[in-house]
Amino acid sequence: MGHEHVHEQITALAALDIDFWNRDFLLTWEHREPTLRAVLLAAETIESLVREGLSVRLFDGGLGVSIFRDKSTRTRYAFRAACSLVGLATEELDEGTSQIAHGETVRETAAMVSFLTEVIGIRDDLFLGRGHAYQQEVAAAIEESHRAGVLIERPAVINLQSDLDHPTQSLADLRHLAAHFGSLEALRGKKIAVTWAYSPSYGKPLSVPQGVITLCTRFGMDVVLAHPEGYDLVDDTVSAARRFAGESGGSFTMADSMPAAFAGADIVYPKSWAPAWVMRERTRLVETGGRAALDDLERQALAENARHRDWECTAETMRGTRQGAALYLHCLPADVTGVNCESGEVSREVFERARLDTYRQASYKPFIIAALILAARFRDPAAALEHLLQPPRTRRRE
Amino acid sequence: MGHEHVHEQITALAALDIDFWNRDFLLTWEHREPTLRAVLLAAETIESLVREGLSVRLFDGGLGVSIFRDKSTRTRYAFRAACSLVGLATEELDEGTSQIAHGETVRETAAMVSFLTEVIGIRDDLFLGRGHAYQQEVAAAIEESHRAGVLIERPAVINLQSDLDHPTQSLADLRHLAAHFGSLEALRGKKIAVTWAYSPSYGKPLSVPQGVITLCTRFGMDVVLAHPEGYDLVDDTVSAARRFAGESGGSFTMADSMPAAFAGADIVYPKSWAPAWVMRERTRLVETGGRAALDDLERQALAENARHRDWECTAETMRGTRQGAALYLHCLPADVTGVNCESGEVSREVFERARLDTYRQASYKPFIIAALILAARFRDPAAALEHLLQPPRTRRRE
Amino acid sequence: MGHEHVHEQITALAALDIDFWNRDFLLTWEHREPTLRAVLLAAETIESLVREGLSVRLFDGGLGVSIFRDKSTRTRYAFRAACSLVGLATEELDEGTSQIAHGETVRETAAMVSFLTEVIGIRDDLFLGRGHAYQQEVAAAIEESHRAGVLIERPAVINLQSDLDHPTQSLADLRHLAAHFGSLEALRGKKIAVTWAYSPSYGKPLSVPQGVITLCTRFGMDVVLAHPEGYDLVDDTVSAARRFAGESGGSFTMADSMPAAFAGADIVYPKSWAPAWVMRERTRLVETGGRAALDDLERQALAENARHRDWECTAETMRGTRQGAALYLHCLPADVTGVNCESGEVSREVFERARLDTYRQASYKPFIIAALILAARFRDPAAALEHLLQPPRTRRRE
Repeated sequence: MGHEHVHEQITALAALDIDFWNRDFLLTWEHREPTLRAVLLAAETIESLVREGLSVRLFDGGLGVSIFRDKSTRTRYAFRAACSLVGLATEELDEGTSQIAHGETVRETAAMVSFLTEVIGIRDDLFLGRGHAYQQEVAAAIEESHRAGVLIERPAVINLQSDLDHPTQSLADLRHLAAHFGSLEALRGKKIAVTWAYSPSYGKPLSVPQGVITLCTRFGMDVVLAHPEGYDLVDDTVSAARRFAGESGGSFTMADSMPAAFAGADIVYPKSWAPAWVMRERTRLVETGGRAALDDLERQALAENARHRDWECTAETMRGTRQGAALYLHCLPADVTGVNCESGEVSREVFERARLDTYRQASYKPFIIAALILAARFRDPAAALEHLLQPPRTRRRE
Repeated sequence: MGHEHVHEQITALAALDIDFWNRDFLLTWEHREPTLRAVLLAAETIESLVREGLSVRLFDGGLGVSIFRDKSTRTRYAFRAACSLVGLATEELDEGTSQIAHGETVRETAAMVSFLTEVIGIRDDLFLGRGHAYQQEVAAAIEESHRAGVLIERPAVINLQSDLDHPTQSLADLRHLAAHFGSLEALRGKKIAVTWAYSPSYGKPLSVPQGVITLCTRFGMDVVLAHPEGYDLVDDTVSAARRFAGESGGSFTMADSMPAAFAGADIVYPKSWAPAWVMRERTRLVETGGRAALDDLERQALAENARHRDWECTAETMRGTRQGAALYLHCLPADVTGVNCESGEVSREVFERARLDTYRQASYKPFIIAALILAARFRDPAAALEHLLQPPRTRRRE
Repeated sequence: MGHEHVHEQITALAALDIDFWNRDFLLTWEHREPTLRAVLLAAETIESLVREGLSVRLFDGGLGVSIFRDKSTRTRYAFRAACSLVGLATEELDEGTSQIAHGETVRETAAMVSFLTEVIGIRDDLFLGRGHAYQQEVAAAIEESHRAGVLIERPAVINLQSDLDHPTQSLADLRHLAAHFGSLEALRGKKIAVTWAYSPSYGKPLSVPQGVITLCTRFGMDVVLAHPEGYDLVDDTVSAARRFAGESGGSFTMADSMPAAFAGADIVYPKSWAPAWVMRERTRLVETGGRAALDDLERQALAENARHRDWECTAETMRGTRQGAALYLHCLPADVTGVNCESGEVSREVFERARLDTYRQASYKPFIIAALILAARFRDPAAALEHLLQPPRTRRRE
């Protein structure tokens, strides 16, 4: 009969107590652990189907809508690839990136692009204090229109990066780690160093480190966070990470330098971000229109960054990791010293060695997004996947 | 076996004498009443299929091309949603919105985007005297290439808003009214007030009111049109409305104020538009390149608008409608006083009460477009829908 | 049983010794003649399937990615139409057209847009010495990621126009000639005049004439090339044409005027292009940022062009062709005297007579692209096509 491995995965998925149907996915910490496990397992199962050349066309018509309020190549592509895989056409809503929409406009637009839509992916990460709020507004508007009977179906809102979380990235990262180390269980007790790194640009969102520390702590990992003074993450995410670590039997600690965080680490994730206060001030200035003050803020932030040029992931700092061979993670694109900038997050040598690994890390994102669509839109995700095998159809007609 | 309601709708559709196969849909008044009834019924049937979770994938490959010569969110989305529902991929032709194309370019481009294309949706509403002409040019070019054997199939041109008509809007409006009042027949003798309303912007197309008065008069409705002096619609559409009213047993009358038009109305459609002479002058100035004169025209038009700030749909004006509870229509987005403008077409109170109704009104557009594609591209639309049930496939594989 | 003609075409296709699976298609002269014959025959077969109303949906999910580093309407559309026909969704990567990307960025981006992707179509024709190199970089990056196991499938890179070749155009042209004259064999000994023609614009790529002379010479045609002094094509392509002519029993000769080239020609292809040295200098100036020097170059090139206004295809020059009735080819859009320019490549009279023929010529491109996708992504293209008939599905469900 074949496809035994896929059947086993589906059986394991069916055993999980998922609570996600007809809901949104904005923050991983709003969802229960079995739901997160189900998404990871569904992603793995969908990948297996693809590797076996089978169709994953779960829908026969319908739309995936994307709203990008920031530039994106990787996530935009991953969303399209996932939609295409499961049988949804895509439509991108072009709102412009310069304005911070709110109120009536959001409510109305959300309804207008939801007829026949199964999923709405939103990236809104530029303005701290606004991105998650915007996604909540869209979700509330859809809920209202669905309850009123205006929408026949209720599309799921999926966070493709907000000011608080980047769940398709962090789940792809976790899937990558589980694949690399053998299983999700194998990650228990593994040490991951999430650290700030120098970049000659300013205004990078905080959502990646926030997403990673809040997710890895739920699966028994030892998470160490390090950043220069003043580059604190949003308080709530740090306290959530601490709480999760306590619950899962993992740990969450702080270190005060990259080498300290890297010491004995199995995995390192050195990446630049802006201080929360800079991001909040930027939001305020954009909303009040202070052009000159914005330029000042940028200058000030870059000058502050420049004081921390030593936060670079080099062969030297890597030497302190477990056996000098920690797995290097990056959400890409990285600022690589001597490649796309004079001085950046990572040395050319370290990055070049890890380059194909970072591509592999990225390769899981389409599967994570497809799994989120499956889990949000199908009451019984395991049955839907099983249905794909009755009988199996090849993706290539041959 | 189930789906009896859909079977009944298909049987009713099969009984209609449709004359639309391999033709275009540019103006409702170019089409016979049975064709319009068939489009409305097909839209209702497709909606039923969707509500029952069934696939409406009429095509297995093929393209829907859209050409937007004006900004659009709602109609662009509705076109994509409709194409996706029936199984067509979409491609948007980006011509820029600033130039008024004509001649060779149109003829050639039309052929170039028609290979393997089933439908071409065009919005060209900015320039009075040009939009419909452009759509005719595209249609003629396609007809020529099809006759010459260059095009294997003849894509249908569908008007997604021109200077004369906005048939996907007016048909969606009519479908909304039929759903609201119970049936198309139930609309006979219902009074609809189509009135101008104040807006702080200028240059809004005339196609919505023109589309509504020419369509509602064909189904026995009592249509009242009201606008300030000088805001006349294009003569031909007004005389068509008058003629249709005579033929259908409805009526078409003029009123000289919003309250007069609203008196006893079952339905109100207060909406801003520009005077025809302003739109014609704008076309002339754009074509002759008079930048300064265009600015003057805008100033003059806004000043004229400002004299009619009292044309606002308020709780007070609504009180005069039938039982003070007329159904409020708007094609969206509306200029809502105190929400997105200081003073606009409708008060916040009235709009908020009607808001979800206007979303519902908009929800019919994808089904109307899908029905137009069906009726234009299938020789026997009823048989094509019946085919979808032999056997029925679910849209979600579960 | 029906579809006998298609079965015969598939049988003929199965007999060809193709060597293209899991490879790229950047230059026709990198591929063996049986592969080119197979692409032409597959395109013809796919067209037959479409003419018989049958589905050509070879894929059930997957993406076609396009990268356009130059404006495009026709080729962009043809790529979408082909992808839609075979069942691939499309995604366009928007890089901007102003920069010449290289190095890390290309390598990383190529991997990022390749997960679940079957084909990547690239147009990069603006900068002589760069376009083909860029396509090679993308292909090498994909090959690397595929070998490393990062990509489950290896998407094929297809050249949608580079500085060296425009194979989807030249193959569509050849398919058009075969259809016009009855068969590929019937082209043996037919004379085609590929000549420069005057245009009031500068910077037109050389890839069309280069593509045509290198392809037609492989099938026994008599190819004559003519251009004003200084408008030489890239040396390698001319010497390849000469070599191919020798091998195929055709001929490749030069003439020094349009009338000389046209004498007795069965087919004429008069088209403007820029001198190779101008294109090379432009690349250098863009890369070194010499804005003023670029303006000088443009002025100089236009002045040089203007000395050759007499290179226009007119009724008079056409009179010298075989029976005064050579088939006129153009890749469109043409610069037509008195239509879209004062003085151009072809007179209004000649172009208007040939207009529908040029549309027909263009109509083959989607089929050529579909055939390239088939041949690159299916190990046994004939079996894949045969599979479409077991049983045949209609493209319209009726």
